[in-house]
Amino acid sequence: MAGNSIGQIFRVTTFGESHGTALGGVVDGVPAGLEITEADLQVDLDRRKPGQSRYTTQRREGDEIKILSGVFEGRTTGTSIGLLIENTDQRSKDYSKIMDVFRPGHGDYTYWHKYGHRDYRGGGRSSARETAIRVAAGGIAKKYLKQVHDIEIHACLSQLGPIKAESFDWSEVENNAFFFPDTSKLEALDEYMRDLKKQGDSVGAKVKVVAKNVPVGLGEPVFDRLDAELAHSLMSINAVKGVEIGDGFDVVEQKGSEHRDELTPEGFASNHAGGVLAGISTGQDIIASIALKPTSSITVPGQSINTSNEPVEMVTKGRHDPCVGIRAIPIAEAMMAITLMDHLLRQRGQNPHVDVPHGPIPGQAK
Amino acid sequence: MAGNSIGQIFRVTTFGESHGTALGGVVDGVPAGLEITEADLQVDLDRRKPGQSRYTTQRREGDEIKILSGVFEGRTTGTSIGLLIENTDQRSKDYSKIMDVFRPGHGDYTYWHKYGHRDYRGGGRSSARETAIRVAAGGIAKKYLKQVHDIEIHACLSQLGPIKAESFDWSEVENNAFFFPDTSKLEALDEYMRDLKKQGDSVGAKVKVVAKNVPVGLGEPVFDRLDAELAHSLMSINAVKGVEIGDGFDVVEQKGSEHRDELTPEGFASNHAGGVLAGISTGQDIIASIALKPTSSITVPGQSINTSNEPVEMVTKGRHDPCVGIRAIPIAEAMMAITLMDHLLRQRGQNPHVDVPHGPIPGQAK
Amino acid sequence: MAGNSIGQIFRVTTFGESHGTALGGVVDGVPAGLEITEADLQVDLDRRKPGQSRYTTQRREGDEIKILSGVFEGRTTGTSIGLLIENTDQRSKDYSKIMDVFRPGHGDYTYWHKYGHRDYRGGGRSSARETAIRVAAGGIAKKYLKQVHDIEIHACLSQLGPIKAESFDWSEVENNAFFFPDTSKLEALDEYMRDLKKQGDSVGAKVKVVAKNVPVGLGEPVFDRLDAELAHSLMSINAVKGVEIGDGFDVVEQKGSEHRDELTPEGFASNHAGGVLAGISTGQDIIASIALKPTSSITVPGQSINTSNEPVEMVTKGRHDPCVGIRAIPIAEAMMAITLMDHLLRQRGQNPHVDVPHGPIPGQAK
Amino acid sequence: MAGNSIGQIFRVTTFGESHGTALGGVVDGVPAGLEITEADLQVDLDRRKPGQSRYTTQRREGDEIKILSGVFEGRTTGTSIGLLIENTDQRSKDYSKIMDVFRPGHGDYTYWHKYGHRDYRGGGRSSARETAIRVAAGGIAKKYLKQVHDIEIHACLSQLGPIKAESFDWSEVENNAFFFPDTSKLEALDEYMRDLKKQGDSVGAKVKVVAKNVPVGLGEPVFDRLDAELAHSLMSINAVKGVEIGDGFDVVEQKGSEHRDELTPEGFASNHAGGVLAGISTGQDIIASIALKPTSSITVPGQSINTSNEPVEMVTKGRHDPCVGIRAIPIAEAMMAITLMDHLLRQRGQNPHVDVPHGPIPGQAK
Repeated sequence: MAGNSIGQIFRVTTFGESHGTALGGVVDGVPAGLEITEADLQVDLDRRKPGQSRYTTQRREGDEIKILSGVFEGRTTGTSIGLLIENTDQRSKDYSKIMDVFRPGHGDYTYWHKYGHRDYRGGGRSSARETAIRVAAGGIAKKYLKQVHDIEIHACLSQLGPIKAESFDWSEVENNAFFFPDTSKLEALDEYMRDLKKQGDSVGAKVKVVAKNVPVGLGEPVFDRLDAELAHSLMSINAVKGVEIGDGFDVVEQKGSEHRDELTPEGFASNHAGGVLAGISTGQDIIASIALKPTSSITVPGQSINTSNEPVEMVTKGRHDPCVGIRAIPIAEAMMAITLMDHLLRQRGQNPHVDVPHGPIPGQAK
Repeated sequence: MAGNSIGQIFRVTTFGESHGTALGGVVDGVPAGLEITEADLQVDLDRRKPGQSRYTTQRREGDEIKILSGVFEGRTTGTSIGLLIENTDQRSKDYSKIMDVFRPGHGDYTYWHKYGHRDYRGGGRSSARETAIRVAAGGIAKKYLKQVHDIEIHACLSQLGPIKAESFDWSEVENNAFFFPDTSKLEALDEYMRDLKKQGDSVGAKVKVVAKNVPVGLGEPVFDRLDAELAHSLMSINAVKGVEIGDGFDVVEQKGSEHRDELTPEGFASNHAGGVLAGISTGQDIIASIALKPTSSITVPGQSINTSNEPVEMVTKGRHDPCVGIRAIPIAEAMMAITLMDHLLRQRGQNPHVDVPHGPIPGQAK
Repeated sequence: MAGNSIGQIFRVTTFGESHGTALGGVVDGVPAGLEITEADLQVDLDRRKPGQSRYTTQRREGDEIKILSGVFEGRTTGTSIGLLIENTDQRSKDYSKIMDVFRPGHGDYTYWHKYGHRDYRGGGRSSARETAIRVAAGGIAKKYLKQVHDIEIHACLSQLGPIKAESFDWSEVENNAFFFPDTSKLEALDEYMRDLKKQGDSVGAKVKVVAKNVPVGLGEPVFDRLDAELAHSLMSINAVKGVEIGDGFDVVEQKGSEHRDELTPEGFASNHAGGVLAGISTGQDIIASIALKPTSSITVPGQSINTSNEPVEMVTKGRHDPCVGIRAIPIAEAMMAITLMDHLLRQRGQNPHVDVPHGPIPGQAK
Repeated sequence: MAGNSIGQIFRVTTFGESHGTALGGVVDGVPAGLEITEADLQVDLDRRKPGQSRYTTQRREGDEIKILSGVFEGRTTGTSIGLLIENTDQRSKDYSKIMDVFRPGHGDYTYWHKYGHRDYRGGGRSSARETAIRVAAGGIAKKYLKQVHDIEIHACLSQLGPIKAESFDWSEVENNAFFFPDTSKLEALDEYMRDLKKQGDSVGAKVKVVAKNVPVGLGEPVFDRLDAELAHSLMSINAVKGVEIGDGFDVVEQKGSEHRDELTPEGFASNHAGGVLAGISTGQDIIASIALKPTSSITVPGQSINTSNEPVEMVTKGRHDPCVGIRAIPIAEAMMAITLMDHLLRQRGQNPHVDVPHGPIPGQAK
């Protein structure tokens, strides 16, 4: 229970279901004095928003973020920030047929058993719609990290089904609907997705997320290591089935003489470690990858059961993403940002707050 | 930082300032299947609401609570519950004169130092207006405690300034505007408050809060004792300067032979302990008292300084409660309820959830 | 469950029973570079140790503290510090007669119900013997607070039964076996305790604890206020039934014009608030008081029951303190220190660590 | 800071360095009444212990576990359990040459920067020696899970460098020094390890860990999902660079129609999900895999720097494991057990405690 919070000093708590009134959350622990507007947060929400390209779900949500507290005269006050997004395009009748049926690969079965009943409207709390608030909260963290520490976080799609990025040009990532760094593959991706749509099927993806300019020293051994907490926050994203730091599973076949990052007076000679040694940031780029499963909301018929334990044939209509990895780009960035911000504040405390000009300090107490 | 949450398994997180857009919060860890409506929560909000009698502030707030998530078809789903109260009567211009001045006895000075600036509109986050969401969250806990465990929580004013309750008739508490259990003192209270108003002054109060039917065994030694966590939650209420469990400070002059609660085959012979022994509930009534200071928002002039450290004479106009203890009744109940609920769930887990009728359990996994 | 930890960033976790092999704990979150030795911690352990005067229990424990980790070459390393005290004088046969009996006023009844059985040897985990590790952990916090922030924490007995300190001379507190600040009352105290011993009875006490030089700005609104967390940590001490901050319960009869601490360009004119406003430290002395109940381990016979619910007459022999308040002095200081240290680190982070001279920073990563 | 704890309701806190006096920890939240002995915990410690075969480090440690508290008359009491392992074979002079040098691939560089100095004796806290206490704590969890819920947890080596298990025979895992499930590869493994030793190099590995009989319903959406917390706990093991749940990174190339686990009235038809859907256990086997990097303590010379930022050639002598994956088997089991136990208790609470026969319940309080 009480699983809707993440972070210790910088803490994000969220609520909301896919077809409820609204999504929202509380962002606690933001130092005072940070300039922030709703428009700052809207940028990433728009990158995540459904209906942005023909490769994502056609559900249309304004996803308009409102800041309800914690910001006064354009700056954070140091108190908790309330966030709200009202749901507008719910169409919950789409879901009425499936209220007694467990969709394979979804949380229907587990929610029903855990809670004794379920919100069958589009997955309720288990829907990826919940991640909108993560993106908004991550936007606050990204702003702080950039402004105060010059830390930048970017993610891209590094693989979609069988199609891998073979070159990495970060400057291209925001220029295509796939957030793909290898433009030579864009045509293949488009073709693949068209085929997939015809088949009524979906496919998995791999997302890479990188943070630059992270100072050395973040991460608390031994259980709250930076990599362990990144694994937690990234694995908490819907559909994620694997997390890698640095070379990840490639290390299984590496030798020690190959893997270790040698040191020179000018710095590290390589970054197999992905910027984390013994759970603490090295000052190099933090590099992580995640594997996202193919969504189970597909029109290819499948076997399932209903709540009376009778067999049913299952076809998920509704409006769904054929590859949830695409919209996961800003979500992965947000979760990385939230975890880094939490670790920065554990290390540095909330003082000095972001500089706010003020007059002379009044009479210090005796 | 990140101080806006309370509870471990049943956890309440809040946001909102006295003169911002809205107050809100997230209640996490509520078992699924509890019947709950906005009207259930409105009852205590109305008991706390300003403008209810001539003894409280004349600010008028609808304090209309909205449940934004976590409830579906009238029952909790087991997911986080979003709560919202929109502010309607802010009149923040009342406060523009004091933006550079530290009101004595308020959080102005400490907020300004801690955060580098402050939300000067009526105290911002330090205003008791924040407690409205505590009351709403406590309402959920009270409903659960009553429905599932038959636990009842009631508070009353046991002393206002020099006027003490000498008899305790709980059935009278809700019949008078003071929430006072001794009706023989109502006239004296009325007269005292009229005088106070003429003087432009305020006064302290003592509130007693009692929980009945709490099972034996709640509380986790040694640091998370039930009494220690009650002290935390009750001391977190604005203006509280002291917390007692059972006989409280009277124990200083008691002898061991007088204080110890003897046991008989029929149960305890007395309850000096206030229902907690070695940090664990005994099954008797849980009894706590709190001391609330007189509000510092008074029209009696006082010395203060401004942010340039110059002396100023201070008169707080605006609309304020001459005795904040009166409106603290439902707040004290709410905090007791939140802490007891958290301890119950630590002890019992979220299973069995409140009973929800459902069909046969479908195919258990191999 | 899991109630044996306190603090978020500076966190103390303890274990051990009165008649087990050893007491111990883990102190996590201590910044690196602090000079600390076992002798530093032994000082307060000796102040708390039983058998120090004729007014305390005659049980004799060496209470010799061992540091098992986290300190290297005389300085903290930033990793978790393991602490250990071996029990030497257990004499558990003293307790064999009471294994089926619930001593009134003790945790026997509640532990038995909560856990299904109990460690009947001298209270097991509910014994005040557990506080030895609190004192050791508090010693680390006190050292840090003094060395890095010049914060000093002192406690004294302000009342024992009917005998109140009427003058406060802190310089006398460590010169008498009562830790009493009013030397004019020492003779009366001695006489009172002799009488008590003859009666085989015990008495309550009040302890005052004060922290000097605490910076303005500690405490996290709204639930993790400094005063709320102090209430938690002080109420978690065995036998404590009440906690006051500043004027405490005296505020009930105060008027606002009397209570508010006025501000002048030279600082606050008074300190009714006890150094905390709106949950945040003001920079003044932090002042708290606690009420400790009379121990129930007395030879005056009392009524009780056994585990078969049969009535028994109860006389607690063994070796016990007639006034547990006396030995609570270093415990109260320790809990205040632990809470302040935790709040300082939340505010300031672990950086800068206590200065450790080191060479040039090697090659910063690219 | 304060990163040495894991778990919320079942919480493990550890201390100790590779060459300090002792390793130890506190296991909090164990229900009362569980039969447990030091011998129960010793089993897994012996499986992890160095010097067990020619494939692991020749350091010899007795790794004898002591239970210092929380167990009385052979059963847990419900209070915190203190654990201790004294270090016996430290030979810290082996390390004196490297006190000013940063070993590539180790925590030397990051600890030095984070803490301002470091414990250079064999890695101090960053050494895998710390995991001995994890194994002991995990032993308590494994005992509880097996006894109360019939949950069994087993791990094996699924790949060592280029050599993959192609068949899985769990009954063979404990019969060979590699914990390998495919006996047809044992000879190849032996040969590979001999070559590696000649080269003075090390290699990575993959470990699979499986839990059977986990009930449906564990895991708290959305951030404390079971898979997210498993990722956290498994990634916190030294040298781990990747975590997979179920099919893990294979999902990237899977289609939805292939990945989704269909449901039939007899249960799930497959287990690509690894026993977790939407963050909640399905009742199927929980399956996770981890990638462990090759240790950097090798005799192949490498480039590094010292604390004066001068280049040095690095050869790590001492006694080290050429493949840390082998000894990670019981560690992976322990971390899985700790996380599952924590989730079980969140779901079920500490009641009913493990059955302890006791007499009639004495006089319930009024």
